[in-house]
Amino acid sequence: MTGLYNGDFLLTWQHDVETLRAVLDTAEALEDLARGGVSCKVFETGLGLSIFRDHSTRTRYAFRSGCNLLGLMTEELDESTSQIAHGETVRETATMVGFLTEVVGIRDDIFLGEGDRYQREVAAALAESHREGVLMQRPAVINLQSDLDHPTQSLADLAHLVSVFGGLEKLKGKKLAMSWAYSPSYGKPLSVPQGIITLMTRFGMEVVLAHPPGYGLVEETVEKARRFAGESGGSFTVADSMAEAFEGADVVYPKSWAPALVMLERTRLLRAGEKDKLKDLEREALATNAKFKDWECNEAMMRATKNGAAHYVHCLPADVTDVSCAAGEVSQAVFEKARLDTYREASHKPFIIAALILLTRFADPTEVVNRLAKEARPRRVS
Amino acid sequence: MTGLYNGDFLLTWQHDVETLRAVLDTAEALEDLARGGVSCKVFETGLGLSIFRDHSTRTRYAFRSGCNLLGLMTEELDESTSQIAHGETVRETATMVGFLTEVVGIRDDIFLGEGDRYQREVAAALAESHREGVLMQRPAVINLQSDLDHPTQSLADLAHLVSVFGGLEKLKGKKLAMSWAYSPSYGKPLSVPQGIITLMTRFGMEVVLAHPPGYGLVEETVEKARRFAGESGGSFTVADSMAEAFEGADVVYPKSWAPALVMLERTRLLRAGEKDKLKDLEREALATNAKFKDWECNEAMMRATKNGAAHYVHCLPADVTDVSCAAGEVSQAVFEKARLDTYREASHKPFIIAALILLTRFADPTEVVNRLAKEARPRRVS
Amino acid sequence: MTGLYNGDFLLTWQHDVETLRAVLDTAEALEDLARGGVSCKVFETGLGLSIFRDHSTRTRYAFRSGCNLLGLMTEELDESTSQIAHGETVRETATMVGFLTEVVGIRDDIFLGEGDRYQREVAAALAESHREGVLMQRPAVINLQSDLDHPTQSLADLAHLVSVFGGLEKLKGKKLAMSWAYSPSYGKPLSVPQGIITLMTRFGMEVVLAHPPGYGLVEETVEKARRFAGESGGSFTVADSMAEAFEGADVVYPKSWAPALVMLERTRLLRAGEKDKLKDLEREALATNAKFKDWECNEAMMRATKNGAAHYVHCLPADVTDVSCAAGEVSQAVFEKARLDTYREASHKPFIIAALILLTRFADPTEVVNRLAKEARPRRVS
Repeated sequence: MTGLYNGDFLLTWQHDVETLRAVLDTAEALEDLARGGVSCKVFETGLGLSIFRDHSTRTRYAFRSGCNLLGLMTEELDESTSQIAHGETVRETATMVGFLTEVVGIRDDIFLGEGDRYQREVAAALAESHREGVLMQRPAVINLQSDLDHPTQSLADLAHLVSVFGGLEKLKGKKLAMSWAYSPSYGKPLSVPQGIITLMTRFGMEVVLAHPPGYGLVEETVEKARRFAGESGGSFTVADSMAEAFEGADVVYPKSWAPALVMLERTRLLRAGEKDKLKDLEREALATNAKFKDWECNEAMMRATKNGAAHYVHCLPADVTDVSCAAGEVSQAVFEKARLDTYREASHKPFIIAALILLTRFADPTEVVNRLAKEARPRRVS
Repeated sequence: MTGLYNGDFLLTWQHDVETLRAVLDTAEALEDLARGGVSCKVFETGLGLSIFRDHSTRTRYAFRSGCNLLGLMTEELDESTSQIAHGETVRETATMVGFLTEVVGIRDDIFLGEGDRYQREVAAALAESHREGVLMQRPAVINLQSDLDHPTQSLADLAHLVSVFGGLEKLKGKKLAMSWAYSPSYGKPLSVPQGIITLMTRFGMEVVLAHPPGYGLVEETVEKARRFAGESGGSFTVADSMAEAFEGADVVYPKSWAPALVMLERTRLLRAGEKDKLKDLEREALATNAKFKDWECNEAMMRATKNGAAHYVHCLPADVTDVSCAAGEVSQAVFEKARLDTYREASHKPFIIAALILLTRFADPTEVVNRLAKEARPRRVS
Repeated sequence: MTGLYNGDFLLTWQHDVETLRAVLDTAEALEDLARGGVSCKVFETGLGLSIFRDHSTRTRYAFRSGCNLLGLMTEELDESTSQIAHGETVRETATMVGFLTEVVGIRDDIFLGEGDRYQREVAAALAESHREGVLMQRPAVINLQSDLDHPTQSLADLAHLVSVFGGLEKLKGKKLAMSWAYSPSYGKPLSVPQGIITLMTRFGMEVVLAHPPGYGLVEETVEKARRFAGESGGSFTVADSMAEAFEGADVVYPKSWAPALVMLERTRLLRAGEKDKLKDLEREALATNAKFKDWECNEAMMRATKNGAAHYVHCLPADVTDVSCAAGEVSQAVFEKARLDTYREASHKPFIIAALILLTRFADPTEVVNRLAKEARPRRVS
């Protein structure tokens, strides 16, 4: 029993380690069943609703796939064709789309200080309407990326590391470098690095966060990473260069993000509708970025890692030098070598999402999985 | 047997009272099954297609939920990405999207004199193609709001009143005030008030319609309300003020709409592409609206109702003063008190839609519902 | 065994006649089952993904219907809301949306020299990811119209002719006129005429291609038509006028398309972003088109056909004179007479697509169809 039943999954640090293990175990069990051609359908009918307030391909399809695997029909709330623009409140809309909905997946990662708040608002509205008997069930809210965390990504990354190293216990003492990397873009969310440092420190990993001056993360998440490292017997340190962070690393996660202060200022300017100042901010931010073009994960940089052969991981899409841009997060040689592994990393996400649905919607998810395995209905006629 | 089998549901006044009762009973039975965790899936495969020519959140999700409850996969005909713009006729398109479709839900409420005509055109095309053997089944057309009626809304409202007063028979003699209310917007359809006065008069209610001078409804619907009131032993009157209409009312439905003449002129100007005149029309209409800001459902107004405690109902979203606008249809205090009840009111719509699908697609819907209850397959693994 | 298992279906000429026969037979069997109310559901869960890089109504719904008939949930990759714009490669995206996907349908017909290449790129990416164990199954890529071929259209047309003439064998010696026809538009793809001449020549038909000077098709497809006609005992000739092509024809397919050279130049200018030159090109192309307004399929033209009563076929939507334009591909009288037959022609497409899914996804599709027939589960509760 994980405490997830009839609840939400917004931030990994709101849940204990046992719960996170249960997510991994359930995801693995579902993936095994699916690969074995066994149906994982647990819903006859029901909706899986997604709300994407930012672009998405892989998380959108992971959500749709995860829902479909369990038998839910997916729908996407398109805020441009709905009446939300007509002055509707979040509270009301959440209920209106929740009558036969089992799960609501939300991506809201653009505005720092907003995304998580919005997700909690939706969850509170659904909880109220369920408590008052308006909704016959309490749809779970699943965070598909907020300003604070990107749990379906970090848990998929964790599942990948478990697979790479042969077990969750094997992660103890392994060094992971979560490093800022250069990208010719601006405004990338902080949720991935924040999600990684707060999750990987819970399993005894030696996590090093590296970034140029001024590119710090939201302080709350750094504090949590420090505390979790202490509790799990791992470590958490901050380094000033990618090279330092990579030293002896088993895993490297080089990725661009925007400084938290830039993101906060951007939120303020967007709200105020100050277009000229937004352009100034973008220009300045790109100029600052450009000072750190040497934060590229290339073969020279990789040589410093454990046996020169650290596992490169990334949430995708990566900004690959000479492929998607002139200078980016990773060189073509390093990326191409790891490419199929990054696909494997991503392949866990539909099952992580399906696991979160099972754990939030069923009182005894283990029993449900066991029954699926026992009945072994084929996923398609054979 | 209701006469709905293999037909459409466009306007409530095209159907007799027994048919409307059957819709309510079927919706209630489906809701009971769903709340009891029993599967209502009656289709193995099949499409539920929607065409929204105006914004929608709640009706769109009610349609999707109702289809999903019965096992239909939903699709939405997006006129911006389809080839309809390439000169395709309605007749042809209706058939092209109808090959494996069980139901077509249409919202077309913007142009007075157009929406209902379009829905009948689609229905006639489907009927022809079925008659000629092109379509293997005759998809039902369900009106999700036209210029004349909004039957899934008014029937959901009726189901709510039945629940509030404890039975359809209990509505006899109850006074309902369908009153215009101020909103800082222009061009809201007439279909809700028209739907309400033509439906509630059929069950013996004392219906009062109130609006400022010039805000009359389409005459045909007012005549029908008058006739239905006579037949059912209720009454239908027109009042000049919200206050007069609210006097002793059991139920109040304060809602903004545009004058029919403004809507007709708007249709003409939109067709002629006269942008400047459209702006003039909007300016004039808003100025006229602004003369009636005192048509607000507030606590003072509510005191005149039966025991000062009439049931406030609304199709949502309401324009709430100090919440979604500076001055609107209803004060914050009145709305907040009734808020969860308006959610309950809305909660019937998915089941009304599912009931309409059952009644149009099955020769013996009662038998179908009884069988679902008897088999009692769980809606999800338990 | 057709060789389609775990493969793709991009161009009809990549497959032998036995395979094409199997597609027709499977489609017919599925249509018979569906018309008999028998469920054709073979997937418990799974996704059917579509990518439309051009407008579509009928093919989009045929794909959705075909997927739904077999039990797949459909999703559409919307390139405007996905992160593809962020520099993502085709290879990566294909895998990311493929984890639980059984079939990917693609329309990419605007750029001559591009569409087929893109489809092969997606297929290669899926094949690699499957080979490497990233994907647990190999999703089939189905061509929903490329620059070269439109196989689901031409096969539906073929199924229609089989039905009209009473068998595939009956097509031998029947004369089909694939003729260019005037339309007041520019840039229509070549894939339909190319698909028709390369497919119908394989079954012994006497195919005549007619077009004004300069409106030739991609040479490769003309060569294939010539070769296929030789192999099947039919014939393939090119005529200079619609009248000549119609002489004694059993079937006429009058349809507008753009000259291949114009399409190539358009592709070049679009890529170079040369807007002024694109306008010049369009003006010139329309002026050239206008010289051939007499290429209209009207009653005078039809009198030259076999007994004055050739079967008129069209992929729809047709440009009908005095209906969708002042002067078009076909006169109102001819079109109206054939209208319901063109609907029948189109009605085969969902089943052709479902057949292609069955043949690509199942090792023994005949056995699957036989089992569906034997089990005869109802498509809906009865």
